[in-house]
Amino acid sequence: MLALTLGDPSGIGPEITEAAWRLLRHSELRFVLMGPGATVGSLAEARRVFPERLPVLAATPLSVAVVPGRPDPANAPAILGSIDAAVRLARAGEVDGIVTNPIAKSVLKAAGFAHPGHTEYLAALCGQPGREVMMLAGPSLRVVPVTIHVSLRRALDTLSTDEIVRVALTTAAALRRDFGIATPRLAVAGLNPHAGEAGHMGDEERTLIVPAIERLRAHGLDVVGPMPPDTMFTAPARARYDAAICMYHDQALIPLKTLDMAHGVNVTLGLDLVRTSPDHGTAFDIAGQGAADPTSLVAAIEMAARIARIRRPSCA
Amino acid sequence: MLALTLGDPSGIGPEITEAAWRLLRHSELRFVLMGPGATVGSLAEARRVFPERLPVLAATPLSVAVVPGRPDPANAPAILGSIDAAVRLARAGEVDGIVTNPIAKSVLKAAGFAHPGHTEYLAALCGQPGREVMMLAGPSLRVVPVTIHVSLRRALDTLSTDEIVRVALTTAAALRRDFGIATPRLAVAGLNPHAGEAGHMGDEERTLIVPAIERLRAHGLDVVGPMPPDTMFTAPARARYDAAICMYHDQALIPLKTLDMAHGVNVTLGLDLVRTSPDHGTAFDIAGQGAADPTSLVAAIEMAARIARIRRPSCA
Repeated sequence: MLALTLGDPSGIGPEITEAAWRLLRHSELRFVLMGPGATVGSLAEARRVFPERLPVLAATPLSVAVVPGRPDPANAPAILGSIDAAVRLARAGEVDGIVTNPIAKSVLKAAGFAHPGHTEYLAALCGQPGREVMMLAGPSLRVVPVTIHVSLRRALDTLSTDEIVRVALTTAAALRRDFGIATPRLAVAGLNPHAGEAGHMGDEERTLIVPAIERLRAHGLDVVGPMPPDTMFTAPARARYDAAICMYHDQALIPLKTLDMAHGVNVTLGLDLVRTSPDHGTAFDIAGQGAADPTSLVAAIEMAARIARIRRPSCA
Repeated sequence: MLALTLGDPSGIGPEITEAAWRLLRHSELRFVLMGPGATVGSLAEARRVFPERLPVLAATPLSVAVVPGRPDPANAPAILGSIDAAVRLARAGEVDGIVTNPIAKSVLKAAGFAHPGHTEYLAALCGQPGREVMMLAGPSLRVVPVTIHVSLRRALDTLSTDEIVRVALTTAAALRRDFGIATPRLAVAGLNPHAGEAGHMGDEERTLIVPAIERLRAHGLDVVGPMPPDTMFTAPARARYDAAICMYHDQALIPLKTLDMAHGVNVTLGLDLVRTSPDHGTAFDIAGQGAADPTSLVAAIEMAARIARIRRPSCA
């Protein structure tokens, strides 16, 4: 059983949740939405009614009526309350993991939310701040950016050997624990064109990335790199590693979304909590029109269930 | 008729040229290799014998014997002489364009070659230095990087509104003249994640890129942007533009090579000369083993012929 969060209710969350339930109602998967408008009174009831209706378990009520496409900071307590309730269930072992619908940071910030983002908030709720790592996983590629939601200049200024090592070690551990890969193979991207071409086009490969790779190998990890960024995402190259450690947001996200926009899943690594999320935002511009594609949310639900199964084998 | 250059003879150039000729000998295309070991005495003979053998027209001889995989700066005169001869034929109107085999800048530099690269050398030979723009064209995507073979930090430091405008205007003119697209549609990439998200992650979109887009629109061009880099290369997004103007090397090259490594062609825009090139290097590591893939060279030959045809319609 998984708990789904509400996300911003004026975004596409409600409709893709309903659509995902329709696609999965006859599967073996079970999930419950934490939100206003409860339709069940317990997890046991949620499990039972799942094939008949989308189970909704009571969380913080809305403050104002939802208008699709028109987010309202007044509903921040309902958005955050849904996340809090889902995490509580997961930490108590009552659900196997959580799948979060998209939120809009700007809406929550207007209501006083001070965390840098969704994932950092979850890490804080879990009592594991700073342990989180973001992976984007598609059908044929897993990418893990070392720097994420910062300007490209700030990414260059803050990239460090320590952070590359932390992210790569967390990734390797998660490939074992969450993906069942006994001997993970990591590919570490270069930062510059052609990975710097022996220092002719930038020296971060030599000063930051190679030292990180050496430390990772000292941990016994199977690591290649620094890889020329433009050729490391071709099909033959992808077949040789289980995850690509990328130096900045678009180095990771361009190949992932170019290869397969619909099936990408955001997976949080490094926390005790199993947490996935669709790889898209609130899409306020199309909310409420029935045009939203539930594919990524369905993939996120399936992946969370798979990770939970791998972590806790049912017939161990 | 096209002229092919020798490239570095200890790279894969000789074998992919031979392989391309075998694949194209019964087509309507005609080309001649400028190099040592002449097999024909004139372009007329080259045209005539093409279905029977690869025509080679005399250019500068080799200084030392070629060892595959072992480049020798002593052969720089033959490498450069082949380029010079091909450009001379093109400028005289005796061939319709040139297709260049890969060179290794480090080998030529060791022999005193002072130009930053192949394309700049061609621009100088054509008397049009500084006019060149590099496009990479694949089956479903054309990309044009504004900054190219420099470190990512130097790309950030040198990116300018003027250069974005110059590159985009040259691209639009080439899409009309070389690709037959009467009303070219350009997509200009942002620099930062999510194109800066309204200044939250970098301000180059506001300070450099939006002003460039406004100037391009003042020229009457159909331009969208700044586009979030990670979503602009999906299939539905690509269908809405004819070329993507990219801010740095890997923003352009990652999606191009991830989508289709084999068929990418390097096209030089902005010169009077028609010039294409395969989208790969000398590959010294596999030279002489018969393992090199001629697909990109064949695509380059076909594209040069197509561009020449579009520029000079035979039944205008």
